[in-house]
Amino acid sequence: MASKQSKKRGATPSRAPQSKTLAGRLKSLDALFRPRSIAVIGAGRTPNTIGHEIVRNLVSAGFTGPVYPVNPNAGVVRSMHCYADIALIPGEVDLAILVVPAKYVVGAARECGEKGVRGLVCITAGFAEVGAAGAERQRELMEVCTMYGMRLIGPNCMGILNTAEEFKMNASFANSRLMRGEAAFMSQSGALGAVILNDAEVLGLGMSMFASLGNRPDVSPSDLLEYWEADAATKQILMYLEAFGEPERFMAIARRVSRHKPILVVKSGRSARGARAAISHTGSLAGSEVAVDSLLEQCGVLRMNSMKELFALASAVQAGCYPKGRRVAIVTNAGGPGILATDACVAEGLELCDLGANTRKKLEAFLPPEASTANPVDLIASADATSFDKSLALVMADKNVDMVLAIFVAPIMIDAASVAAAFAKHAKSKRKPLLACLPGLPESSAALELLRRAEIPNYSFPGDAAQVLAGLVQLRELRERPEEPAPKFRVRKKRARDLIAAAVEEKRELLKDREVTGILEAYGLPIVPSALVNNREEALAAARRIGFPLVGKVVAPEIIHKSDRGGVLLDLRNREDLLTAYDTLEDRFLAEAPNMQVLLQAMRSNGVETFFGVASDPLLGRMLAFGLGGVHVEILKDVVFRLHPLTPLDARDMVEAVRGKALFEGARGKPPVNKEELAEVLLRLSQMLTDNPEIAELDLNPFLAGYRGESSFVLDMRCRIQLPE
Amino acid sequence: MASKQSKKRGATPSRAPQSKTLAGRLKSLDALFRPRSIAVIGAGRTPNTIGHEIVRNLVSAGFTGPVYPVNPNAGVVRSMHCYADIALIPGEVDLAILVVPAKYVVGAARECGEKGVRGLVCITAGFAEVGAAGAERQRELMEVCTMYGMRLIGPNCMGILNTAEEFKMNASFANSRLMRGEAAFMSQSGALGAVILNDAEVLGLGMSMFASLGNRPDVSPSDLLEYWEADAATKQILMYLEAFGEPERFMAIARRVSRHKPILVVKSGRSARGARAAISHTGSLAGSEVAVDSLLEQCGVLRMNSMKELFALASAVQAGCYPKGRRVAIVTNAGGPGILATDACVAEGLELCDLGANTRKKLEAFLPPEASTANPVDLIASADATSFDKSLALVMADKNVDMVLAIFVAPIMIDAASVAAAFAKHAKSKRKPLLACLPGLPESSAALELLRRAEIPNYSFPGDAAQVLAGLVQLRELRERPEEPAPKFRVRKKRARDLIAAAVEEKRELLKDREVTGILEAYGLPIVPSALVNNREEALAAARRIGFPLVGKVVAPEIIHKSDRGGVLLDLRNREDLLTAYDTLEDRFLAEAPNMQVLLQAMRSNGVETFFGVASDPLLGRMLAFGLGGVHVEILKDVVFRLHPLTPLDARDMVEAVRGKALFEGARGKPPVNKEELAEVLLRLSQMLTDNPEIAELDLNPFLAGYRGESSFVLDMRCRIQLPE
Repeated sequence: MASKQSKKRGATPSRAPQSKTLAGRLKSLDALFRPRSIAVIGAGRTPNTIGHEIVRNLVSAGFTGPVYPVNPNAGVVRSMHCYADIALIPGEVDLAILVVPAKYVVGAARECGEKGVRGLVCITAGFAEVGAAGAERQRELMEVCTMYGMRLIGPNCMGILNTAEEFKMNASFANSRLMRGEAAFMSQSGALGAVILNDAEVLGLGMSMFASLGNRPDVSPSDLLEYWEADAATKQILMYLEAFGEPERFMAIARRVSRHKPILVVKSGRSARGARAAISHTGSLAGSEVAVDSLLEQCGVLRMNSMKELFALASAVQAGCYPKGRRVAIVTNAGGPGILATDACVAEGLELCDLGANTRKKLEAFLPPEASTANPVDLIASADATSFDKSLALVMADKNVDMVLAIFVAPIMIDAASVAAAFAKHAKSKRKPLLACLPGLPESSAALELLRRAEIPNYSFPGDAAQVLAGLVQLRELRERPEEPAPKFRVRKKRARDLIAAAVEEKRELLKDREVTGILEAYGLPIVPSALVNNREEALAAARRIGFPLVGKVVAPEIIHKSDRGGVLLDLRNREDLLTAYDTLEDRFLAEAPNMQVLLQAMRSNGVETFFGVASDPLLGRMLAFGLGGVHVEILKDVVFRLHPLTPLDARDMVEAVRGKALFEGARGKPPVNKEELAEVLLRLSQMLTDNPEIAELDLNPFLAGYRGESSFVLDMRCRIQLPE
Repeated sequence: MASKQSKKRGATPSRAPQSKTLAGRLKSLDALFRPRSIAVIGAGRTPNTIGHEIVRNLVSAGFTGPVYPVNPNAGVVRSMHCYADIALIPGEVDLAILVVPAKYVVGAARECGEKGVRGLVCITAGFAEVGAAGAERQRELMEVCTMYGMRLIGPNCMGILNTAEEFKMNASFANSRLMRGEAAFMSQSGALGAVILNDAEVLGLGMSMFASLGNRPDVSPSDLLEYWEADAATKQILMYLEAFGEPERFMAIARRVSRHKPILVVKSGRSARGARAAISHTGSLAGSEVAVDSLLEQCGVLRMNSMKELFALASAVQAGCYPKGRRVAIVTNAGGPGILATDACVAEGLELCDLGANTRKKLEAFLPPEASTANPVDLIASADATSFDKSLALVMADKNVDMVLAIFVAPIMIDAASVAAAFAKHAKSKRKPLLACLPGLPESSAALELLRRAEIPNYSFPGDAAQVLAGLVQLRELRERPEEPAPKFRVRKKRARDLIAAAVEEKRELLKDREVTGILEAYGLPIVPSALVNNREEALAAARRIGFPLVGKVVAPEIIHKSDRGGVLLDLRNREDLLTAYDTLEDRFLAEAPNMQVLLQAMRSNGVETFFGVASDPLLGRMLAFGLGGVHVEILKDVVFRLHPLTPLDARDMVEAVRGKALFEGARGKPPVNKEELAEVLLRLSQMLTDNPEIAELDLNPFLAGYRGESSFVLDMRCRIQLPE
């Protein structure tokens, strides 16, 4: 179903046929990121125009191959011979940058194809993002690329970079200096791309490669994930995304890559309004937020709230060192910032550890009596570089400590640069993360310059540092998450297929209760004993079979929210109660639903009411939902979603992520319920979805999770299938 | 009770007797903040020592009166005659700054008193913050101040500033330049104080006054609130607090001040760990966080999460213009940042408004066809200063817009400074807030300098700007919140007093159910019909009186969590059920509680189970609590607290702040409940607390809030009083 829906994305033109082999796909992208020669089609003489700046950036970054300006009207660009036509270029051309006006792009691309160019970066805008005519032009461009086997980045982008010594390529119009490093960045927004390169410079964040993807009819985020996975220079992958392309492929690749290279993503369009803006400006659909969150979480990608947080964390990842646990020690020369840092760490779910007795004794030996050797360690204002040096040595070596935040507020009498040097000395070992917080210093101060050179992440505010420490913990946990294949339960798949086939045959979207029961039973899910009855005699007979107490429910296609409408009568304790209930239901609904029936169920309440569900996201496919039943689902929205298919880890996570999960653990004098069983139900449902792609919606609400020693039961259910078109 | 407890704070020495009149109190602080002359006791010759820097800062800020260095060993300090003794100073001295070592401070203070000094700022540390000996020294210092009628700031602080033209006083050792402005700032942490002055400078945030409070045995945050309320130059008040002193006085003053001057507070010690750190470094107790949150909220103070957020908002408050509603328009030249800003605004609870048809038409008239005239308005990358100017004029004038966020990502071909000038032009009118977001520019760029000069708040990241816009909305709402006195219900106070007196007489903390019932009835709260019975005959008689169905509960002091232990039996429908229930309770509890009784109550369930409570905070006093009953209180912690006494607005806020409040409004096919009645119950309870200071804890759980047309009832209750010591 998901694949069917991704075909619907009309806005994205059909993609170029890609190589079936990974090696082939990687090699084709080398034309873009590792070219031996570059032509700039539309190079210009006028500074501050894109056609000029691209040439300038390529040359001033020191591209290691030849750069060929192409423009019939220019003659000379930045003292370089400018070719009137790409065909006239004497050597081979691997990569062409297209800067010509939109109407000339398709023609220029064709000439590139004829010349044997293997990669195009189309800077020019005016394609799918501006409506139907542009979309048509983009389709034509893709046709040309497909025909000549060229890979395409853009149109409507700001270019690409590769800082490797072997290439030194800045094929973008960003007027930023290049800093070589280990982060690869892709951005779906050109403007953000420019900002990113600037901020990276200020933060001392080095880049391996950069790509502004533009409208991306060809090269996609998944392609780049694969490419950067294989690039030895890239140690972390950063992304700004506005929409997903191929969710299944992205998930499969990201699940793998995130185990050895951290992937940090800002996905915009969180709000409905933001999504609307994303649509209007990229011509692509935005996925619903719940589905996006679970997609990223399930494949081990860390979703960041803002570009600011992404950068802050990336500069710590660059230091290449992760905490083993959640235990932070803070070393400070000022009480106030120490308290703020403590608050922020605790708010981020970190733990302010107790320092070892030995550490404290050694600290006491040289610190003044006013200092505090408890965590946060307060060296007080008189602390100089030596004092920080000795304290950090002890705290970094303490076995109770997983990471250290060192805070220095420069008092007038202490030299900040020498303290920064002490920080650098202890950060160098890279056994534990050491983050610095030096508030109130100008960007250009010697101390900050020293920290940047030593690649010590530094934050002006303790709260930012705490957020980064928590991010490092999360990344380590994501990387180490267990890799378990989903179990394969023994089920009666054929029985379920037959029941669904019958409904499809009748073109009936909403399944009947007995059909849902049949399907659920086929997948090993327990249904409460029940009987559908048509009159008082049948009711009495059923009661004899099932036993009291009973629940009576009206059953009729007309009546949807039956419990809200008085269509569910509880705790029928004897024949009298039962017959009264039967009459009551008839009184209430017979007029409206002349074919109504009554469902009698054994009344079960020794357990926690939970909710299992299936929902479909238009872009990303089917999701499983789990939460507490009743009011918890509808009023408090205490529901957790994950994209199908689930791994065992996903299923366990879902059970643990419910806000009211204390109820599973035996709250208020009640016994606990079996959480493993709840996770298993989720995995069985996921297997059911795999086998039955027609199932689009499912509600098991409530599912009574039995207290220890009691059985669990589906008490009510609803299932909708998607009929073939 | 609260006042009794504040007496307990042993760490804070007794305060100097303050003037009873506001005028007297304000005048006494003038000696500190508006001195005509200043002596620096402990002035030094060596640069980069505090005794030297204080003199230097006073002189270089241009203090308008004479500065007298005092030090028997110095002779000359910064080319000024240095007096060997304060008595030798020829003129009068209003303010003395003490920088001498701790052991000389008390003596120096006494000499100041003899000289007629009216205010002391004691920079020197080594007092209450370092243990018993220091606390004793601080007590002596306060004695001297009280004896001579001197006001004291510090000890253990970094000084004070007043930027008014008339004084130009920098009596601090912060090496920061002074920027005159309208924000007054108090900090309980000296180190943060220094950072604050630095950051204020970078952000272009001007200050009227600044005070680092240190250990504050005398001048308190409440004193400064009063003082700055009366200061015409101060338009907003910023605070960093680690602990509250006198909560009642603070609340009373802050409630008043916040109606005309915004008060922004960072209160640290949010986490238990943070609180511990706060204690160790200031020698003061930290209030529990729930109580602190409600205290600040109730008195109209905005609590900020971090100093960073506080500054960001303060620099927008400085612009002096508040939005009338929550409707934001975004004008941008780049899609990506526009989407991020949209997401962030929506996440902050703001509304991306639809622009008027006329505005859109006029925008369309001059913008290129690729631009988007929907909100966010995307002028696309080609937009120059003229285009921003025209667009901002239209959007600022649109009646659907309450505030504007203007985003400019500098492309290579557009001059950023001229765009910034267009922003400045439209911000000037101050009819609506205009915030700027110019990401990726260096701090020193002409564009940013221009924005700072024009006092246009500028943020590098859209998320920060959105947070500030939301903060402006909150400040406007706080300022305009209705001022209603609490109603005075007609109650039977004497009946309640008698019941409590009897329990006090018997030295019994836990009240009996019939006593609680009596007190609640005296305050007009409805109790469910019930009877306490001792045997099966009494049970049957009570049932005849109350009517079936009934609930039976065990009553015995030994049994606390009765419902968790099977001591509550529901839905007894007839004599048979009742007698069985009676026997069951005896079977379960008689052995453990030989004097057990059984409480029979009418069974009521036509309503929403809620929870009302009273809890006592050790420092801040009694709080009222409200939430949904049962699992919602204990597992989901869906409970709202406010400090007693409540205003009608507080009470209504509490009802609205419950997460599951949709249940009050008629969810799931049920009728609504009367929310006004719930608020009234809170006000009646508050009145009960005022009349009965002994009541320390109270649980009405559940309180059944009746559906429309049904009555409400207290179904179970518990009350603990505080016995006099």
